[in-house]
Amino acid sequence: MVKHMLLPPLTSLSSRPYWFITQISRGLRPISSSTRSTTTKMSSEHYTFGPYKIRHEEVFYSTQLSYALVNLRPVVPGHVLVCPRREVKRFVDLTADEISDLWLTAQKVGSQLEHYHKASSLTFTIQDGPQSGQTVPHVHIHILPRKGGDFERNDEIYDAINENEKDLKQKLDLDEERRDRSLEEMSQEADELRKLM
Amino acid sequence: MVKHMLLPPLTSLSSRPYWFITQISRGLRPISSSTRSTTTKMSSEHYTFGPYKIRHEEVFYSTQLSYALVNLRPVVPGHVLVCPRREVKRFVDLTADEISDLWLTAQKVGSQLEHYHKASSLTFTIQDGPQSGQTVPHVHIHILPRKGGDFERNDEIYDAINENEKDLKQKLDLDEERRDRSLEEMSQEADELRKLM
Repeated sequence: MVKHMLLPPLTSLSSRPYWFITQISRGLRPISSSTRSTTTKMSSEHYTFGPYKIRHEEVFYSTQLSYALVNLRPVVPGHVLVCPRREVKRFVDLTADEISDLWLTAQKVGSQLEHYHKASSLTFTIQDGPQSGQTVPHVHIHILPRKGGDFERNDEIYDAINENEKDLKQKLDLDEERRDRSLEEMSQEADELRKLM
Repeated sequence: MVKHMLLPPLTSLSSRPYWFITQISRGLRPISSSTRSTTTKMSSEHYTFGPYKIRHEEVFYSTQLSYALVNLRPVVPGHVLVCPRREVKRFVDLTADEISDLWLTAQKVGSQLEHYHKASSLTFTIQDGPQSGQTVPHVHIHILPRKGGDFERNDEIYDAINENEKDLKQKLDLDEERRDRSLEEMSQEADELRKLM
């Protein structure tokens, strides 16, 4: 595992989107929507993740207040993120309705992913603020399906989460296109997970 | 940091209480209660934490569905646990009302503790199932106030959480009395935190 220091405070975040993925045929609702729908195609819309835009192709589940997205570099199979739709930096800033919806979404997503990946446990973590390792200033729950022996020491998974968190920001900032294979893999994963939800 | 393997599945948990603390003068409601109260003294009642009993002296905040307790060996100042009152092993087993109440409680507790301990971030973690490090089969959120530089590497705090989690079970199983100073310290901490809530 790569050793690293605590991440510095969040500064100079680019607002440029990073993830350019071939569109798939199922749109999800934009942030401004007030009712649920998972059938209308809205190809030009996106989700907000801090200062970044997340294309709906990466989002495999959404509710009125929350959405779940696949990861660029999952730490374990099925490692995903669940966020509030509203751009909120800290957990304390969420409304009661947002908290309830966010964690009901996490419950559903976690349960489905655990079953889908034949895991037997889950890790739920929020790095709430830069001193806890948060790199993108938008509340997000890491959900990781866990299996016996997936990491020699259980805490190693958190080192991996922190690497993932660093990647998240760096890759979003780089604003570079991913290789086609990765883009396709990611769309495919989101597509598979959508079927579960 | 002590290196350790993933914890084995939870078996042979004793139902004997471990924490014997001198009573303080503020009772909190037992699990069977249906309304809130923070003023009635109910010295013989306790909270359930998996197969263990947690005396109300350790509980510094409670709602109808959740409660927050201080830690025997906090990893950082203000490291506490928030649990549903109902004995529920996995996060998926919680009702919508329990999830909402649990995380609203965690939001309030986290916010107050961060301010109280002059921290600038929070770590929220659920080890949901034995393969993620859970040792007591009762859902519990670890909440840790975080400061810059509190751990050289951010992930080291999770190693410490895992040690804390192991201690939790071992100490509950041992059923031995803590030294008076520790008991007193713990009651004092719970008392201080109660004033914040």
